[in-house]
Amino acid sequence: VFRPVARYDCEVSHVFIDNGPASIECEFDEALAVPDTVAKIVEAEADGVDAVVVNCMGDPGVKAAREAVRIPVLGPCEASMHLAGMLAHRFSIVTILESIVPLMENLVRVCGLESKLASIRWVDVPVLELEETPEEELVSRLVEESIGAVEEDGANLIFFGCTGMTGLGSGVRDALRARGYVDVPVIDPAVAAFKIAEAVVDLGLTQSLRTYPRSPEKEIVGYPRGGFRATAAGP
Amino acid sequence: VFRPVARYDCEVSHVFIDNGPASIECEFDEALAVPDTVAKIVEAEADGVDAVVVNCMGDPGVKAAREAVRIPVLGPCEASMHLAGMLAHRFSIVTILESIVPLMENLVRVCGLESKLASIRWVDVPVLELEETPEEELVSRLVEESIGAVEEDGANLIFFGCTGMTGLGSGVRDALRARGYVDVPVIDPAVAAFKIAEAVVDLGLTQSLRTYPRSPEKEIVGYPRGGFRATAAGP
Amino acid sequence: VFRPVARYDCEVSHVFIDNGPASIECEFDEALAVPDTVAKIVEAEADGVDAVVVNCMGDPGVKAAREAVRIPVLGPCEASMHLAGMLAHRFSIVTILESIVPLMENLVRVCGLESKLASIRWVDVPVLELEETPEEELVSRLVEESIGAVEEDGANLIFFGCTGMTGLGSGVRDALRARGYVDVPVIDPAVAAFKIAEAVVDLGLTQSLRTYPRSPEKEIVGYPRGGFRATAAGP
Amino acid sequence: VFRPVARYDCEVSHVFIDNGPASIECEFDEALAVPDTVAKIVEAEADGVDAVVVNCMGDPGVKAAREAVRIPVLGPCEASMHLAGMLAHRFSIVTILESIVPLMENLVRVCGLESKLASIRWVDVPVLELEETPEEELVSRLVEESIGAVEEDGANLIFFGCTGMTGLGSGVRDALRARGYVDVPVIDPAVAAFKIAEAVVDLGLTQSLRTYPRSPEKEIVGYPRGGFRATAAGP
Amino acid sequence: VFRPVARYDCEVSHVFIDNGPASIECEFDEALAVPDTVAKIVEAEADGVDAVVVNCMGDPGVKAAREAVRIPVLGPCEASMHLAGMLAHRFSIVTILESIVPLMENLVRVCGLESKLASIRWVDVPVLELEETPEEELVSRLVEESIGAVEEDGANLIFFGCTGMTGLGSGVRDALRARGYVDVPVIDPAVAAFKIAEAVVDLGLTQSLRTYPRSPEKEIVGYPRGGFRATAAGP
Amino acid sequence: VFRPVARYDCEVSHVFIDNGPASIECEFDEALAVPDTVAKIVEAEADGVDAVVVNCMGDPGVKAAREAVRIPVLGPCEASMHLAGMLAHRFSIVTILESIVPLMENLVRVCGLESKLASIRWVDVPVLELEETPEEELVSRLVEESIGAVEEDGANLIFFGCTGMTGLGSGVRDALRARGYVDVPVIDPAVAAFKIAEAVVDLGLTQSLRTYPRSPEKEIVGYPRGGFRATAAGP
Repeated sequence: VFRPVARYDCEVSHVFIDNGPASIECEFDEALAVPDTVAKIVEAEADGVDAVVVNCMGDPGVKAAREAVRIPVLGPCEASMHLAGMLAHRFSIVTILESIVPLMENLVRVCGLESKLASIRWVDVPVLELEETPEEELVSRLVEESIGAVEEDGANLIFFGCTGMTGLGSGVRDALRARGYVDVPVIDPAVAAFKIAEAVVDLGLTQSLRTYPRSPEKEIVGYPRGGFRATAAGP
Repeated sequence: VFRPVARYDCEVSHVFIDNGPASIECEFDEALAVPDTVAKIVEAEADGVDAVVVNCMGDPGVKAAREAVRIPVLGPCEASMHLAGMLAHRFSIVTILESIVPLMENLVRVCGLESKLASIRWVDVPVLELEETPEEELVSRLVEESIGAVEEDGANLIFFGCTGMTGLGSGVRDALRARGYVDVPVIDPAVAAFKIAEAVVDLGLTQSLRTYPRSPEKEIVGYPRGGFRATAAGP
Repeated sequence: VFRPVARYDCEVSHVFIDNGPASIECEFDEALAVPDTVAKIVEAEADGVDAVVVNCMGDPGVKAAREAVRIPVLGPCEASMHLAGMLAHRFSIVTILESIVPLMENLVRVCGLESKLASIRWVDVPVLELEETPEEELVSRLVEESIGAVEEDGANLIFFGCTGMTGLGSGVRDALRARGYVDVPVIDPAVAAFKIAEAVVDLGLTQSLRTYPRSPEKEIVGYPRGGFRATAAGP
Repeated sequence: VFRPVARYDCEVSHVFIDNGPASIECEFDEALAVPDTVAKIVEAEADGVDAVVVNCMGDPGVKAAREAVRIPVLGPCEASMHLAGMLAHRFSIVTILESIVPLMENLVRVCGLESKLASIRWVDVPVLELEETPEEELVSRLVEESIGAVEEDGANLIFFGCTGMTGLGSGVRDALRARGYVDVPVIDPAVAAFKIAEAVVDLGLTQSLRTYPRSPEKEIVGYPRGGFRATAAGP
Repeated sequence: VFRPVARYDCEVSHVFIDNGPASIECEFDEALAVPDTVAKIVEAEADGVDAVVVNCMGDPGVKAAREAVRIPVLGPCEASMHLAGMLAHRFSIVTILESIVPLMENLVRVCGLESKLASIRWVDVPVLELEETPEEELVSRLVEESIGAVEEDGANLIFFGCTGMTGLGSGVRDALRARGYVDVPVIDPAVAAFKIAEAVVDLGLTQSLRTYPRSPEKEIVGYPRGGFRATAAGP
Repeated sequence: VFRPVARYDCEVSHVFIDNGPASIECEFDEALAVPDTVAKIVEAEADGVDAVVVNCMGDPGVKAAREAVRIPVLGPCEASMHLAGMLAHRFSIVTILESIVPLMENLVRVCGLESKLASIRWVDVPVLELEETPEEELVSRLVEESIGAVEEDGANLIFFGCTGMTGLGSGVRDALRARGYVDVPVIDPAVAAFKIAEAVVDLGLTQSLRTYPRSPEKEIVGYPRGGFRATAAGP
């Protein structure tokens, strides 16, 4: 899904974390996924990668990793919210489960965009069942919730609240059009974050070192990679 | 300044408005600049342009034009604020004159990003004097206000509050570094809006028609181009 | 509708703009109406008028005109919101079309009164059809939406979201009473702004020149009246 | 001070409370002043008064009295804030003592206008010493704080934070002009509330009965006037 | 209800006010209840009491009393909101009557916790009828509104909006469990405020004298207890 | 420091994490400390502990742990903010380093208490140097920043922004008194959280399972304790 929208000279690669939960559906899952996510981002920078997108809508480890590397680190939730803010008066997020709503509302508040959030809705399918669910059914549920967000909550734009839904954007857009909703943009967050990352690299920008300062040197126990520091170049 | 950061396959063109004030420094100037700005954007869409950036930090006519065309219309102020929100905890805007502060603070509030705004500062040079002022002096004033924003107002990132300052980004960044401020990103808003516009086009997105609906057909007096409508394709 | 509530020594006059759209229902319409609105206000000041109320709920040109003249310029939306804030815990606006909601919510945010807004509702009648619609039917729709605002959205006061509804205030109030809603004030915005304008004049006040500074002198192309400036007295 | 700005057909009268503190400078003073203030307002309605302005910037008893009578009850603090919101981007309040700041900031928050408040400053003179202080000295202190509010806090308009300063408006305005501040309106709150009260009466409006419902009938001990109820007409 | 949760060494006593209304259901009732509430708190301090909880959800007299004594004064509404903020993402308040909603929403805003408030709902039973209503029926109504708050308004925690409901906490909790809501804490506000008061005393803390300064000495008419001052020890 | 304020029947114990950084001064440190913090809290619940306070002002792992256990988990930052909100109009936090300000401001926003925050200040001493710094010097720096917060930022109450400062509360209070600041409460956050935890246990409350739901069962790699789940009792 990234290839078709990528610049001709942009190389895309993926890595998975070795340690952590099989999916992220709450603060607990996120806590266990973060250390290895940060480690992989430190490795990516050492490998010469230009920018990193963390492929999860909880933006796990994004803030921590920004302190550990100097390349831009983007979170799909944050990037989608800001992009949505440029394209519409109010947006809704359609995510997997009701249980992730507090986590996601807190992300919105930390970004300061709560006045642009129309609602958070969910299709009631856990992450690990997303793959087993027929795409047709998933799209249908996403469309139901999207229409509810538009008609009942005042949403003018929709984005998905789980990157396990990546690639369903055009299907949902088509189905919305077929239902008469030609006027509601649908953002596929991981893809959006990827394109924002390209733009940030081209602009020669990265996250502010004042917001994300490097942690003072200190002993770190139990993390084999020397506390993630050896490979990270100085500012 | 756009060429070096543009994609290899992206063509950049500029047009000036025929009718309106020589510069925009308040609501009054903006009001007179808007109708022709919208007309030019309607023409640009008819000419096959893929996206438009309005080259003024008051984002004049951006909302009106979004209702008149289907191609994405970006404002540098809105785009910079959202980009800044992804890269830093708080940002400051360094603009031309104190008198433009209310207009700009209202733009921030409409975007919902007031909690991310550290301050708005100004170099006290009117737009039309920007060109006559030696670049060295301008950079020096921008640096003074940027450092003030960081030290006194808690800014972690700076962007310019006038597109007449376009091109000064790297000069200000270098001067800040020379003063020891290696950790503060500086955004050149018109260039940033241009890259966001590229990304929006690549993602197949545009402004929400629900937020920016087409005005119902009606008589429009005194605007020769048929009320801007003839050339605009329907949704 | 102004005469009965006006002070005995207050003379009321109306002017229409020569150039612009036949009605204002979105940002685009507003953009085209603003320049001539400002011009008429500059003329009004030159004619010795004491204060101006712009007769449209989008408050078009209010901020721009405040920079061009020294007499008070009032907008019915802004005036109604503040008056409503003095009389009730939360208010709802009943306007013409859903499409005007983003514009109107942005006006509320710029005034800072979003915490007092219960909801914006609409009767689904375009401005130009207001006159053709039987008054009875209009009142009936306004009453339906007003009751919905009270019962479902928690509104304690209602004001109209289109000055094309001016004069319907007492009809709606009577119909609400007949339905048992004796406790909900209904504000007719143009009339309210008119009375606030009287009070501002009596108090010897006008808009702050710090918020609405006069634009620096500059060349203005395409506007025949010398850029609106010749007749406007200096501060 | 009310006579010169009043309508020709408006009769102004004053009453003092019999029971309560000699001045109101905190929540404690206010608590003791409220019962008799409400009683006097109930009497005023019985006497055929059209509207009441409570002459204290803490707006003591305004909300309670609105529940007990059907004539409009205005508070000078609330009225000034809303009027200021119509005339300027940000306002500052210059009051008597630092100790009253929390009470006053809470009033601003309850009105929802905290985003329009530039600052609260004080002249450091208790209410009961206001009369003994030479007017010249008071004006001079008010001017100092007003200029500080403009230059340091970004205020575009000033209003007094104590009705013991009523009548000093024009003196402060003149002194500000003499110092070069021709562009900052100064509101005298009691006078402003009085003119808003006139407008509310002319518009046939009063506070919302939904916000200020009449208390259910119940026994009230220790208040001789039958719990203030006998003379109050039903809605 | 306090005894079972109190520390072994904590003595609990109650006093009723002599003067004031039989119940508090609006601003008017509250205004009349406040003076004697403050007087009783001043007496309590003189009697050596360590801390006071005002047993009403409008927190009447809490701010005024804090200025008059140095022992901690707690309001059950304020204490419950803050405790709820520590235990849940959003809370709802279930109170007696719709008419008390504005008063209670203003309390929430003054505490700054409006972003944590899911909704305020009511059982539609006046205070004085609470005692006559069978407990079973009251619990049933509280459960209905609590479930509505969870399912429709997004509440994650409930607290009662009237201390006349004190003691119903465990009944409501059990009934909610029986209906399948095992995951929603229910706070009994007066009891919660009592435990917070214990903690504040143990920590050697009290309200800030900067927020709640003692009123300057002045004449107070009509309040027999010397204006509440004789027995109050200085700071 | 906990013993003297604890209830007679309350047993206090401490554990340190085995894996993680030597101190927590940014998001990166926090990310590495969280997994073992959560593990220790799961163990504590299995050991029969009644409530847990995480002894760090970043509240690391508090939200994640709340999902993994049913006993109350308290964070000193969150608990102090809410306690401060009950005792004062505005509070300031005095912490270790400027670099921790964004993390801490985000905590305040997530709690919704940003309107009560006067400022965050720092003594410019890293955590690991706190122990080596003479207590006298630390107290002196804390006092300087506290006075600055009161005089320049409008703070009415102070709490420490690092639990490495635990135990300095009474020293700072005494020194403030000696400087004439008798009216500013100083909260020692870890001790405050401990007392709130006692109160929550006595009230039979815990965090809302709706806000902190248990993560769906799933495979967790790289965490030896079976994903922390074996010992945790169901709801």
